[in-house]
Amino acid sequence: MDKQELEKLIKEKRYLFLKEKLEKTNEVDIAEMLEPLDINTTLLIFRMLPKDLAVDVFAELSVKKQKDFVSMAINKELKEIIDELFFDDMIDLIEEMPANIVKKILLHTRKEQRDLINQFLRYPPDSAGSIMTIEYVDLKKSMTVKDALNHIREIGLKKETVYTCYVTDKNRKLEGIISLRKLVISDESDVIEDIMDQEVIYVYTHDDQEIVAGVFKRYGFLALPVVDKEDRLTGIITVDDIMGVIDQEATEDFQKMAAMAPSEEKYLDADIFTLAKHRIPWLVFLMLSATFTEGIIRKFEGFLQTVVVLTAFIPMLMDAGGNSGSQSSTLIIRGLALGEIDLRDAGKVMWKEFRISIVVGLVLAAVNFTRIYFFSSVGLSVALTVSMTLVVVVVMSKVIGGILPIFAKKVNLDPALMAGPLITTIVDALSLMVYFSVAAWLLNI
Amino acid sequence: MDKQELEKLIKEKRYLFLKEKLEKTNEVDIAEMLEPLDINTTLLIFRMLPKDLAVDVFAELSVKKQKDFVSMAINKELKEIIDELFFDDMIDLIEEMPANIVKKILLHTRKEQRDLINQFLRYPPDSAGSIMTIEYVDLKKSMTVKDALNHIREIGLKKETVYTCYVTDKNRKLEGIISLRKLVISDESDVIEDIMDQEVIYVYTHDDQEIVAGVFKRYGFLALPVVDKEDRLTGIITVDDIMGVIDQEATEDFQKMAAMAPSEEKYLDADIFTLAKHRIPWLVFLMLSATFTEGIIRKFEGFLQTVVVLTAFIPMLMDAGGNSGSQSSTLIIRGLALGEIDLRDAGKVMWKEFRISIVVGLVLAAVNFTRIYFFSSVGLSVALTVSMTLVVVVVMSKVIGGILPIFAKKVNLDPALMAGPLITTIVDALSLMVYFSVAAWLLNI
Repeated sequence: MDKQELEKLIKEKRYLFLKEKLEKTNEVDIAEMLEPLDINTTLLIFRMLPKDLAVDVFAELSVKKQKDFVSMAINKELKEIIDELFFDDMIDLIEEMPANIVKKILLHTRKEQRDLINQFLRYPPDSAGSIMTIEYVDLKKSMTVKDALNHIREIGLKKETVYTCYVTDKNRKLEGIISLRKLVISDESDVIEDIMDQEVIYVYTHDDQEIVAGVFKRYGFLALPVVDKEDRLTGIITVDDIMGVIDQEATEDFQKMAAMAPSEEKYLDADIFTLAKHRIPWLVFLMLSATFTEGIIRKFEGFLQTVVVLTAFIPMLMDAGGNSGSQSSTLIIRGLALGEIDLRDAGKVMWKEFRISIVVGLVLAAVNFTRIYFFSSVGLSVALTVSMTLVVVVVMSKVIGGILPIFAKKVNLDPALMAGPLITTIVDALSLMVYFSVAAWLLNI
Repeated sequence: MDKQELEKLIKEKRYLFLKEKLEKTNEVDIAEMLEPLDINTTLLIFRMLPKDLAVDVFAELSVKKQKDFVSMAINKELKEIIDELFFDDMIDLIEEMPANIVKKILLHTRKEQRDLINQFLRYPPDSAGSIMTIEYVDLKKSMTVKDALNHIREIGLKKETVYTCYVTDKNRKLEGIISLRKLVISDESDVIEDIMDQEVIYVYTHDDQEIVAGVFKRYGFLALPVVDKEDRLTGIITVDDIMGVIDQEATEDFQKMAAMAPSEEKYLDADIFTLAKHRIPWLVFLMLSATFTEGIIRKFEGFLQTVVVLTAFIPMLMDAGGNSGSQSSTLIIRGLALGEIDLRDAGKVMWKEFRISIVVGLVLAAVNFTRIYFFSSVGLSVALTVSMTLVVVVVMSKVIGGILPIFAKKVNLDPALMAGPLITTIVDALSLMVYFSVAAWLLNI
């Protein structure tokens, strides 16, 4: 079913048929179709959905739509949703809603649940604690496989995953894990303790989500247990929630590398002042850093007045430097982010970039020399000056672009800051000094 | 266990203890520890591992290490590994190995398997077919839940996942799916046909892996069926294989946005000529495009000779333009890649970037005017010229940076190409024209 069909069925009031159709549709697709509808139609459709599906659809709605729904829904149906919502979705909801809506939501929770909500809201943003959920299957090591399967049969529908089960002692300390695959394949009378996996890989509540994503990628797990400082199991993170994190971490790097403050807000949803605020600080900083290039040019003003044609090649030289440096820094920043390059590789990277830049620089210089010597009327010494400068600029840019991200990581700065914009600014000043020195030497001024 | 401990145990020949330790270690960690060891030690450790673990470790080794292993292993142990390897890992292996090694591997496969391998090798690179595997659980709709669970018990260990099972008819046409959770929760006598999910979301063998990753992210699935043109089930893709794809797609965009040809090879493994080859074409193209800026400056040579101080601000103006444009294009490219922005949003994006750029441009111009008027000795008209140009440059850059990626997508080019480097080159030329026009007007030359 698509949006057109939905609208047609609503218009023709073919509700029974619509209900049947909706029951067969994925919650993500229903949520998307609801998005543009007005709140009354939304409620109408919600009331057609089986309870479980309604909860799933609610969890997939946009923040704005959730807000509308919570404001307009009657208490009974709100309670049904709140009761059934997975805990991580509940936390997300509470974090995004304004105070009056949160109040309305909390009315439908029990005291213990509210305490737990408060505890979860205190985890640092983007930590494992802030993205985990509490709906996991908890087993005891003395259980048999039959007990365990019966337990899963009873509670399995309310758990975020049943495919990895967690074995804990009476103090909630994590003792082992066992997969549903193992349970299904094992003999009914086997005891969990004998067949569980005791070497459990886990993360801590305060670990950053980037670390969590790294563990998922490394091991290919479907879920990961989260423990507190006392090694007590406090929640789990499932792989579907991690895919968003992987995208989010890459997006943050894209933003930082383009000289912006990172933001999770979607572009089309953000207002222009927020967007401007994220962009201005770095632009101002980089603009003020241009004082150096300005100073260098002004020092050589007399010189430029004599050979004004040199000015014509400044943009090309600076762009070539900036682009060369961006290439190198991008590869290194990404390599660091994916764990393919680490701090000990600094020497290797520098040596590699040096050799690459010689190759690249010579090719560019050859093309450039050919073009300006044969096709512009600038004379041999200017063509030589520009081309020789180009080689030096490319080499400098690539070595600096390669090494600065590693250096940043070494001093605990984010390597993504050492990207194109900053490298360009640094290389601009150096390029001009090289350019004027080479010119002074070759043109005998 | 870590690398030091492993080396110590080998040195002290405490093999029995080492064997016990290894059995409790995750295959990914073992593979990493093996990486730096010589081939004899590697084989020694391999021979200690239980067969299943050995296969898992082998699948995690680097290409180089796999090659060493296949060359040195005796036929019997090679056969054991080949027999047990998941089909997608086998295909990866064959794709990466040189011809003589592939020959050695194929010796251990049966005729039908070789035909299947050939079929898989023909799928386009980065298509769903090229990343899928054939080890899925296949059920018939007439089975009861008990039959199904028995079937899973028999074959489950050899399947990549048992958590989603696929129901097919006698012509391998996909009729439905059912999760192991549902099977475990259902009554033993329930018939699959009655409880399976008939609305299956699937991809085609020739779909690009980017589309596949999008489906996983959208629905949060653990596995996805892949069908051929006749809707016959040909394989499945599991979520663990998709996390690598998400990273790879982001890496490709990072590379393109920094004006490089995308490459899957790891930086430290690639040789310098390959790396240089990926970087040179765009640099040459961008360098040649600088002919425009050059032409503009040369046209205004006389002008610049009169007010040579104007030259000093060219780098700052060009960088501010380039950086402003990069910010916008990066957000739009990323939004397009994540599906948060689509082609219909072109107008919205343009209008949004226009308003943002006015805010940003005015702030930058104010800061800039203050700095150069009060702290440089350039006089009011030069300070005004530079600051007014700055506003126009920022507005132009942001609008162009916002709209070009969408335009690229519209004409089926990759939006990631319309990033910083290209935007900078375009904006450079425009900035200079604005600069000289404003100067001519304000300075009355």
